[in-house]
Parts: sequence; structure tokens; C-alpha cells
Amino acid sequence: MAGSYFGNSFRITTWGESHGPAIGVVIDGCPSGLALSAKEIQCFLDRRKPGQSRYTTQRNESDQVEILSGVFEGRTTGTPISLIVRNQDQRSKDYGNIASCYRPGHADFTFDSKYGFRDYRGGGRSSGRETIGRVAAGAIASKLLAEMGITIMAYAKSIGPVTVPTSEYHLTEIMENALYMPNNTYAGQAEIYLKECMERQDSSGGIIECTVHGMPAGIGEPVFEKLDASLAKAVMSIGAVKGVEIGDGFQAATSHGSINNDAFTCENGSISKLTNHSGGILGGMSDGSDIVLRAAFKPTPSISQVQQTVTTTSENIDLSIHGRHDPIIVPRAVVVVESMVALTLIDLLFANMSSRLDKILSFYKR
Amino acid sequence: MAGSYFGNSFRITTWGESHGPAIGVVIDGCPSGLALSAKEIQCFLDRRKPGQSRYTTQRNESDQVEILSGVFEGRTTGTPISLIVRNQDQRSKDYGNIASCYRPGHADFTFDSKYGFRDYRGGGRSSGRETIGRVAAGAIASKLLAEMGITIMAYAKSIGPVTVPTSEYHLTEIMENALYMPNNTYAGQAEIYLKECMERQDSSGGIIECTVHGMPAGIGEPVFEKLDASLAKAVMSIGAVKGVEIGDGFQAATSHGSINNDAFTCENGSISKLTNHSGGILGGMSDGSDIVLRAAFKPTPSISQVQQTVTTTSENIDLSIHGRHDPIIVPRAVVVVESMVALTLIDLLFANMSSRLDKILSFYKR
Amino acid sequence: MAGSYFGNSFRITTWGESHGPAIGVVIDGCPSGLALSAKEIQCFLDRRKPGQSRYTTQRNESDQVEILSGVFEGRTTGTPISLIVRNQDQRSKDYGNIASCYRPGHADFTFDSKYGFRDYRGGGRSSGRETIGRVAAGAIASKLLAEMGITIMAYAKSIGPVTVPTSEYHLTEIMENALYMPNNTYAGQAEIYLKECMERQDSSGGIIECTVHGMPAGIGEPVFEKLDASLAKAVMSIGAVKGVEIGDGFQAATSHGSINNDAFTCENGSISKLTNHSGGILGGMSDGSDIVLRAAFKPTPSISQVQQTVTTTSENIDLSIHGRHDPIIVPRAVVVVESMVALTLIDLLFANMSSRLDKILSFYKR
Amino acid sequence: MAGSYFGNSFRITTWGESHGPAIGVVIDGCPSGLALSAKEIQCFLDRRKPGQSRYTTQRNESDQVEILSGVFEGRTTGTPISLIVRNQDQRSKDYGNIASCYRPGHADFTFDSKYGFRDYRGGGRSSGRETIGRVAAGAIASKLLAEMGITIMAYAKSIGPVTVPTSEYHLTEIMENALYMPNNTYAGQAEIYLKECMERQDSSGGIIECTVHGMPAGIGEPVFEKLDASLAKAVMSIGAVKGVEIGDGFQAATSHGSINNDAFTCENGSISKLTNHSGGILGGMSDGSDIVLRAAFKPTPSISQVQQTVTTTSENIDLSIHGRHDPIIVPRAVVVVESMVALTLIDLLFANMSSRLDKILSFYKR
Repeated sequence: MAGSYFGNSFRITTWGESHGPAIGVVIDGCPSGLALSAKEIQCFLDRRKPGQSRYTTQRNESDQVEILSGVFEGRTTGTPISLIVRNQDQRSKDYGNIASCYRPGHADFTFDSKYGFRDYRGGGRSSGRETIGRVAAGAIASKLLAEMGITIMAYAKSIGPVTVPTSEYHLTEIMENALYMPNNTYAGQAEIYLKECMERQDSSGGIIECTVHGMPAGIGEPVFEKLDASLAKAVMSIGAVKGVEIGDGFQAATSHGSINNDAFTCENGSISKLTNHSGGILGGMSDGSDIVLRAAFKPTPSISQVQQTVTTTSENIDLSIHGRHDPIIVPRAVVVVESMVALTLIDLLFANMSSRLDKILSFYKR
Repeated sequence: MAGSYFGNSFRITTWGESHGPAIGVVIDGCPSGLALSAKEIQCFLDRRKPGQSRYTTQRNESDQVEILSGVFEGRTTGTPISLIVRNQDQRSKDYGNIASCYRPGHADFTFDSKYGFRDYRGGGRSSGRETIGRVAAGAIASKLLAEMGITIMAYAKSIGPVTVPTSEYHLTEIMENALYMPNNTYAGQAEIYLKECMERQDSSGGIIECTVHGMPAGIGEPVFEKLDASLAKAVMSIGAVKGVEIGDGFQAATSHGSINNDAFTCENGSISKLTNHSGGILGGMSDGSDIVLRAAFKPTPSISQVQQTVTTTSENIDLSIHGRHDPIIVPRAVVVVESMVALTLIDLLFANMSSRLDKILSFYKR
Repeated sequence: MAGSYFGNSFRITTWGESHGPAIGVVIDGCPSGLALSAKEIQCFLDRRKPGQSRYTTQRNESDQVEILSGVFEGRTTGTPISLIVRNQDQRSKDYGNIASCYRPGHADFTFDSKYGFRDYRGGGRSSGRETIGRVAAGAIASKLLAEMGITIMAYAKSIGPVTVPTSEYHLTEIMENALYMPNNTYAGQAEIYLKECMERQDSSGGIIECTVHGMPAGIGEPVFEKLDASLAKAVMSIGAVKGVEIGDGFQAATSHGSINNDAFTCENGSISKLTNHSGGILGGMSDGSDIVLRAAFKPTPSISQVQQTVTTTSENIDLSIHGRHDPIIVPRAVVVVESMVALTLIDLLFANMSSRLDKILSFYKR
Repeated sequence: MAGSYFGNSFRITTWGESHGPAIGVVIDGCPSGLALSAKEIQCFLDRRKPGQSRYTTQRNESDQVEILSGVFEGRTTGTPISLIVRNQDQRSKDYGNIASCYRPGHADFTFDSKYGFRDYRGGGRSSGRETIGRVAAGAIASKLLAEMGITIMAYAKSIGPVTVPTSEYHLTEIMENALYMPNNTYAGQAEIYLKECMERQDSSGGIIECTVHGMPAGIGEPVFEKLDASLAKAVMSIGAVKGVEIGDGFQAATSHGSINNDAFTCENGSISKLTNHSGGILGGMSDGSDIVLRAAFKPTPSISQVQQTVTTTSENIDLSIHGRHDPIIVPRAVVVVESMVALTLIDLLFANMSSRLDKILSFYKR
């Protein structure tokens, strides 16, 4: 099966291994007429780059994106957009002992189980570098959404046990701290926590929250292509995500209908909800409120502590992983979550265009 | 867009409204040679039937399934299997006021937003009866899995605040109580809790857990068609689900790599994990351990308490919903979760068959 | 793989065997708001019914269609439309010897090769009755197209060697003769030819031509989802079709660029072509001229003459096929071609809606 | 809609414009373990290169392919294979007047109709260079098929009116003449014919035939994903193809069942057919005989003769196209047909693997 594509109307296919010559993505189905430059895509990519703070790896990866097709005279043409990023900092000796053993928490064992062998250099296809293609495509999807008045914002709600309560969000501070938290004070606490983790040669997990503003109501397809189901898949497809929830999420399990139901109200002919326990989605379709989604990330599996594992020849060994590793994935993954949400929304917005005969007739009226 | 189909190699398409003439499903891609009778499918359907206990609606729906195609002389032929269940108990007057207003927590508003109007009788396509098609197809997927030595078990881990700790699971008790909880004592407490909800004309949410035993390692496609991502979409596509997690799920966000990583070990040439924080999935592929998944269900939105809402003509009103409604969806949804998991697994097992050249050559060797 | 569905945005799934309880189709992705009755679908189905003339089988199949979902108060709701036709005239003893041998020109051998066994009654899934689902769905697609000002017309251009030259088309006569030829005089000659075939216990092939009027320019997706490629697949998927051509088709192979190129001209600001060798398609997209397509049908494989074949146990035998069989498939297939063309066009018209950013913004402008 | 991908299990996505920086393809779903080098792919690409004879353009395009991902230590890993060919000989001034007018027989008008504007340099995405991606992927599919014992051979059956009768095929001569015809004498006649076309500043069409040897019986999915239907779409998606036929094709329309039916016979337990009018496909599945397919190519639309057309600002003009153009597409398209056939077969071979329960159980037996 082909597992490296995402979306139907706006379809992306990512390719590339951590230590191959390059990594990239092809976007098939981007509409014509969007002004687009490599610089705009680069801005998105720079948000996932390492070396932004001391809590992310210090490798010097420039990750410059090049547009190879689908853009002519500064605008998209409607044909596939091919984006490529050359891999540069490939110190393969750093990853030597991965070849012969299965790192705990990594995909080494499952790749070998599936394919019989694997490109072991730097995690190969399961490396975090695979998200470069997602983010490059996400930059384009986000720009399309912005043209439609739809904006997406993601941030680190929790770093380990340090959680910013919704009541203390200062959204302007997200870009002010290296952890992308919506509160600089909590970010300071989280930094202390991460420092302790690093000293223990350990790593931490966290939670990313993502909100979408400006979605028209009625987007998403009932039954299997529900907006929330599609978002869940999109976000869960990011390497380290172990849970996804919408609106009140797992808290809804202990709630009551009388609380969890959002009352509708009408003012000046405009229908809205008094609360947003639903997280902006009802019956799998957007309800006009902000979409609210959270994703739980597991701790970075690469830690320097000695771990027990087995070799590819079935010997039990003690493994020490060397090299530079983030003690937490969350800050760099913020833009990845944002990208996956953007890709999901644009695809369902396009799919929705053939939902009503009256609107189709109006579209094709000549 | 077509949103009522699920799966690729083993593809189902469900159809039908709560109060239309019938509800059904077409399964396209079921392999030939499976012994199959309507009776086996009926056993699955009976698990989602109302009237099983006093905590589920007392309507008398017989929901008898009929096989219309794809089975010949008791075995599947490889051609589409069409299953139909006639709707019988359609007291449409019960649902009269739904036509002109938007019930809080329901899909009435979003359906109208998308399509311009809706079949308002009993929720139409967004009714819980839509899951009949899923469960009928799930029965077949489960039987295929069983032939391959793979078994799925779902149960109610939590009913509102009543949660059965993993250490107190008695799996044989699942079928002994009406709530499908893995511990009869906790089920008793949950019954008391639900009784209180009903007395307050309120409803409750809960959590369903699902485990899969016997999956070979390496199933699932890296990147976008990951096993966990696919499971998340499948389960989140069930009406009332607001969150999905795999293994340690949201708890992983506060864990450390040194704890969350499952060590590998090898005994007698067989590789396994010492713990299962990963919930049986690494890098989007099965790792050979049991798959563990949890889904959070919101409280039933239909409650008898007066609620504030708006009419389809934008007037603010107070709404009282009458009729028979479950105070909780969870017990009837257990088999739906099991079905969606089965459908996801069988599809990815089939997709996996073309992963390795040596196995393809062995398959086609003549 | 799931092979019984067609289309993406407007997706149909057909099911059912010739001698099973019923045959049907599910249409997923039909927009809301289309006025639709069973009677309108029945009109299409009646055109493929046997017993219309003495050149089609005399079985008395009423083939009454029932709408099971997706229509409410006379209009489509946007949810899946399930259509069913009960099988009635199932004289299974007519088909007895098919069970144990492979009829030449039929799918018996290939079904057994693929699936290990087959539903041998009346051809099972490979029966011409499979097209009932296509035509029922085609009726809906055709009505949608008509609302958009797009009309499709198919007819028998050739019956065996009797071919109506384009210069002698009288389109009003198509419905006046039992063979659906666009010239009653040629139809008379074709009847004499078919009578001779029947006397020799033999069968005949023919050619169906289909034209589409009113298509806007630019429909179809470049590269792999070209309009002509999609039409070719759609039409070639009809059982007995062995060739498909667009515009000048195979004659273009012996033509010259100076002749085959259609000159563009502009009158009153409207661009059109002076000729239509292209058959209305350039670069895989509609060019605004009428679409012209032809499909070659092989002779009905079921003939009464003794034929040489083998049994399922690998014995060489002489086979005599009894029962009622059309000496030609073409007349009944005219509406099937029309349906497949309609299904292809509607799907690509929907897909095209997200091609241009300016049109998307106009669609979602609030 | 995304139109630049092909296939499901073995899915390719092509990208790139004639005069952009590069052209390429991503293959998603190639199984692991195939030995693969850029050199092998280059051999296929060289067969579609211009400058091979005086009947194809004399541009010096080196078209060197580079493998960017999916291959490790000389073998495919199961992850996406990204192939890229840099564009080199881009003399954009040659194509200047294309920007402002619609060339007859080209996709200029339809691209503008669909997308509002187009990359006019050298035909942009509708250039014949788009097939580079197809052929690069086709090389891999062909190698996989060869491992399975399946071989494909295509050749020019007709160049304009010069047709090689089947009885005079000398297959070893295909590679001996620049036109890839299966008879050097006919190739000589065709060369004279093409010379005359060029002197008249005109172009010619032709017919490519393709045969497949070694296909197991039962490949292809009944109903809509039939082998012949899938092949028809694949081949018709090549730019200049106007018709496709299988086996006797359009001749079957004037044949009789008694002739067209292929008798089955059994010798030493092996079932075969005495004739092959079916072209190796019955009921949409391979029947074990050689697959035979023909595609009709229209004459190259780019001719030097003055042609009537309109500008993008709707003025009627006389157009003279300068630059270097092939008087015929057929010879360079032979390997493209072969590639599209290979891609179709490998996809359906993979899809077929989940058709039978007994074979699935055998595959997953542990």
C-alpha cells in the first residue's frame, strides 16, 4: 500500500530519508492563482528547524527549500508543486550502532518486521526530518486558508507536568519563548523542568493545542470523513503522538449532557453557541465556533541513559545512544501540528464544494 | 465528496437514515472462501441493540439482517456483500419538534449548514442507527481476523467517574453486566451513578477501551497510513467520540523516555517487549505486543431537561426533548468500537501484503 | 482490492448477482437538493430491460427500483442513496451446466482462477444484470447534468457490418426502432442481419456512439485523470466492450496534423473550433465542442452452437448452451454507455470545482 | 482534484513542466528488496529520448535520472522512491508566440479554460516531457514484473498508412530500426512516408501495439477495476492517444460469437485457449493468454504549416509554429505505452493478493 500520501482534493506525497540526498514533497491539487514564493515556505520550515534554542538539537541544518514545479511568474499554475530540501549535515558515524540493534521506543524493530531490512542512518524514513515535507506543504495550505479568512494557531499547552491553564493564555507570548508556550512565566518553569531532564539524561513529553478561527459551518463529511476523525488521523500520523482530543475531549467522559451540550443562540440573525465544549465540531462537521484540538506527545525516545534491548541477530544487549537529541519534541512539532491541521481543513473545504446542487449550479452558471 | 465509505482493500459503504425504509452496508473487497451466515452477523448486531438493559432505550427494534449478495452456498464469493436491515419501529411523531429547531449537542445545525435542509426524523443519517452498517461489516472483519488468529476485545473502562483500574479487570465479567464493564462490582457502582443521572434528566459520558491480541509485527504503513493514525480516525468517526489515545496516551505527555520506552528482550529467538507503554504500536506499525486503545465518549446529547436553542427560522426558544433516550451511549457503542478496530486492522493487513518482494514472489510462485 | 465502486466525488458502489435475492447500488456524494423519484430512475432502467424487441431476451423481468435512503420529501439530502431491484425471474435450472464447465468468451474460467470458485447461476456477478446498478446511478447523474445544461445521447452506430454514416443520422429515429439506431432504414437492414445470425445460432457485435452536448471547457484533470482516459475506463468497464475511441479515434492514426488539428475561431468574443476531430477533448480536458466517443462491443458469447471447452475438472467437452440469449448486446447497452459517461462527467465536474483560487474564494465568500 | 497520481498499491505521482528546473516522479508503494540502480532506470529513459533518429527532435537533452530516496545499499527499502531529471536545454525563445495564442490540437486553450492562465513555455505540464516521470516509474514496475516472470513488449504496428501485418512480425527487428517497428522492410517504407510528411511541413499518426507474456490468470478486479478498463485508462492518459483496443478490438464489432469466442482446451492438466480473440482478458481478468492491446496516436499537432487560430485576447490570427518538432510521436511513445501497461499490471497484481482467504491465511501463517 502507498502510505506516504495525504488528502484527496489537495493531495501531498512526501518522500525522503534522514540521511539520503534530499527530502521533499509533491502537492497535487493546489488551485491555480495563489501567489507563492520559496521564502514563504521557508518561514514555515524555519519554525521546525533545530538550533532555535538549547532545548532542541544544535545541528546546523540550513534546510533551504527549492520550488521545482507548479509555480510560474510567482503564482501557482494548478499543476503539481514539487518542493525539495537537500540534506546537508549527515554525520553518519553518529548513528553507527543503530544498524545492528533495535532502539527502544523507535521504529527500528517494526521497520525490520515489515520490510526485512531498513535504512538505519538517522532513523531513515522514520526520522523527524520526514516532517519537512509536511510542513512545506502545510505552508501552502495555510496560505490558502488565510486567503479564505481561516487562521490556525498551535502552541505548547504542556511541557511535561507544566501546563498553562486556558485562563492564563497570552497568545502574543507564544513567539516570545523558545518552547512556543502561550505564557512566558510557565515557559520559564518548563525550561527548568527540561534542564533537570537533560541532567538526568532523560526526556519529556508534552501537549500541543491547536485552534482554528474562521471556519464556515458545515465543513466535514458525515459518517467516515468527519472533520474530527480526519483531524485525528492527520495529527496522530505525526511520529510521537499518542493521543488526540477535540473540545473537552477526555473530560467529556466524566461530564453530563446538561453541561457538555452547547446552547445555541441567535443575535441579529446570526446563530452561535454560548459555550464551546464541542471544540467547534458537531456530527463531524464544523459548527462555526473555533475548532480546538489537543495532541499528546510521548517523550523523545532517544535518551543517553543505558537501555536494555536486542540486536538484529537476537542478542540481548545494553544500549547507550550517543549524539545530539532533543530532550523534548514538542516545540519543534508545533508547526507540524499546525501543518497537518491546515492540510486536513483545505482538503475538506474543497470536498465540501459539491455538497449542494444550488451552489453547484451557481458555480457553473455561464 | 463521498464520506460514507471506509477502507481501501476491504471497503465498506454504509447507507440509511434512522426513519427511512432500511439501513445497510456494502462490503467490497471481502476475500472469497469465508464461511458466513446471517446468524453470525446477527450476533454482532444484537450487541448494539437497544433494550438490553434499563440503561439503553426500550424501543423494540428487531434489526434482523439479510444477506443480499456476495455469499453462495454458505461461503463468500469475493464479490460485494450487501447487508440490509429494515427499519421497523418508526414512530415519527416522537421526533416532531426536531424539524424546526437545532438540538444542542446534535448535528441538526451542521447538517442544515452543509446541505440546506435535512431528514429530521430521528436524527436521519446522524442517528446512532447509522452504526448498524458498521457493526454488520465489523462482524465479517472480526471473523476474518479470528481466522488469522487475531482477536479484539472492547469494554467500558469508565462510566462517568466510575473507572475500573487495569489491575482489577476480570475479563470474563464483561458479558455478565449490562454495561460491558470488566468488573461486576464497578458495574454496580456505575448503575447507581446512571440512575442518579436519569433522575436528574441528565446523561453521562464514559470511556471504552479496546485491546487486540495476536497481531503480527509490522502491520501499518509508515507516515500517513500509520496503524495508530488509522485507528484514531476509525474510532473518532463514531458519533460521540471526542478523544482517542493509544497505549499510555495522554499520560505519556507527563512521562519520561526512561519510563515510556519499552525495553526489548529476546528469549528462545523470539523478540518481545518487557512493558507495553506504546500500546502495541511503534512508528505507526504493530510491534507484536497487544494493541491498547481508549476512546472518550461524550454524554448523550438528548436529555429531557429544558435547554436553550434556536429554531431554523432563527428564533431563540426553550427546548424540551421527549421520547426514549439512553442516558449513556457507551454500552451500546462497545461493539461499534470493536467493529471499527476490526475494519481498520483487516484493511491494513491486506495492504501490507505487497510490502516485500520476497513475499510477493513466494505468493505468485507457480 | 475493492473493484465495485466508481468515481470519487460522486461515488457509486454496485452489488448483486444475477440469481441472488436482489441487485443494487449505493450512490455516495450526490449533492442535496435534487428533485428525485423512483419513477425517473425507472425510466432509465426500462431502457436496458429485456423483452423490448425480439432481438433481446424474452424474459419477463419487471426490475422495479426502490429508493431506500438519501431522499426526503422528494429531494436528495446529500447522504447516500441506496437503490435496490429485487431479482424475480430466477429459473436456475436453465443454467445448470455452467456450474461444471467454462463457457468460451465468458468469465467463468477467470472467476474460478481468481476466487477459487464462483456463483455460477446465470453468470453471477459477471451477468449483464450487474449493469442495473450502473444505470440506476446513471439516471441520477444524467439528471444532475441536465440541470447544468449538459445532455448525453447514445445510440447504435453499427450492428455487425451495418453502419449508419454520420451524414445520415436522424436522431429523432433513435427511439423509433428497437435497435436504437439513428436511422430507421439502416435499422431495418440490421434486423435482417440479426435474423440471419439467429438462424445460424450465432451472435453479432456492434458499435455504440455517444455524444455529449453542453460541457463547459476545461473539465478533466491533466495527466492521469484526463477526461478521455476516465471515459475510456468507464466505458471499457462494461462487460463486452473491446475498444474505445474519442473523436476521429483510430482514423487519426492515418491522418495528418494539417487535417486532424481543429482550427480555433472567435466570433462575438466566443471561441470555438471549426472542426471536431478531437471529439471535444484536448489535453485531457473538454474543449467546449461536443464530446464524441465510440465503443466496440464483441458478439454475445452465449450461442447455441456446439462449442469446444473444458470442465472445472479439466476434461475436454463439447458444450451446448441452452436458454434465452440476446443475439446482440448493443441495443440494451446503449443506456449503459450513456450512464457510464454521465457518471464520469459528473465526477470530473465536481473535481474541477477546486481548480482555481478565485473561484474557490467566490464560492466561500460569506 | 489531484490528477497527477496513478495507481493504488503501487502509486506514482509525476510532477514538472517542460521548462521548469526539473521533472520527476515519486513512487509510493514499491516493495522492499528489489535491486535497483539509476542505470537501469536510465536505460528505459533513453528509449524515449529525442535525437535517436532523424524522425525525432534533434535537441540534445541528456535527461540523467537521479535517485533521491527509497533505495539503500542498492535495494529498495519499501519507502517512497523519488526520481528527478533536471531540465537542461531550455531555449525558451523558441516558444515565444505560444504565450499569446492557442495552438490548434494542443492543450493551450483547455489549460487556460481550466486554470485561468498557464505556463506556456514549451507546453508546460502538457509537454511530452511529462512522460519522463511515467517512464522512470515504468522502469521499476517492469523490473518487478520481470522478477515475477512477466514481460511486456511494445512496438509501432503502424506509421500512418504503413501497417505491419501480424503474420510478418519479426520481433528481433524492433530494436533494429529507429521507428521500433517489428519489420525492417515496413520500417523502410514508413521512413519514406515520414520524409514526405516532413517535406509538406506536416505530421503523421500511428498505432502502437503492446503484448504481455506470462500473466497469471485471474488478475484484475471484476466490474469497475477490470484489467482491460484499467489498461484503457492508463494508455489513454498518454497525451496523443485517441483510441485503445484489446484483442480483436473494433474488429470484434463485425465478428460473430462462433468466431470471437476462444475455445478452451486442456492438455496435461493445463487449461489454455485455442485462439486469442479476447486479447488475454475475459470478464475484466487475465485469462492466461498473452495480453494484446493497441493504441491509436494522433499526428503531432505541432506543424510548420500556417494554421488558423485565436489569441488569448480573442483575435483571429494565422499561426506559424517554428522550432524543432517530431513529425510523429509514435516511436518515442513506445516505451511510454510499455511503462503505463507495466504500472497497471503491477498495481492489479498487488491488489489481487487479498482475493482469497486461503491464500491470505497461507501468507500470514506464522
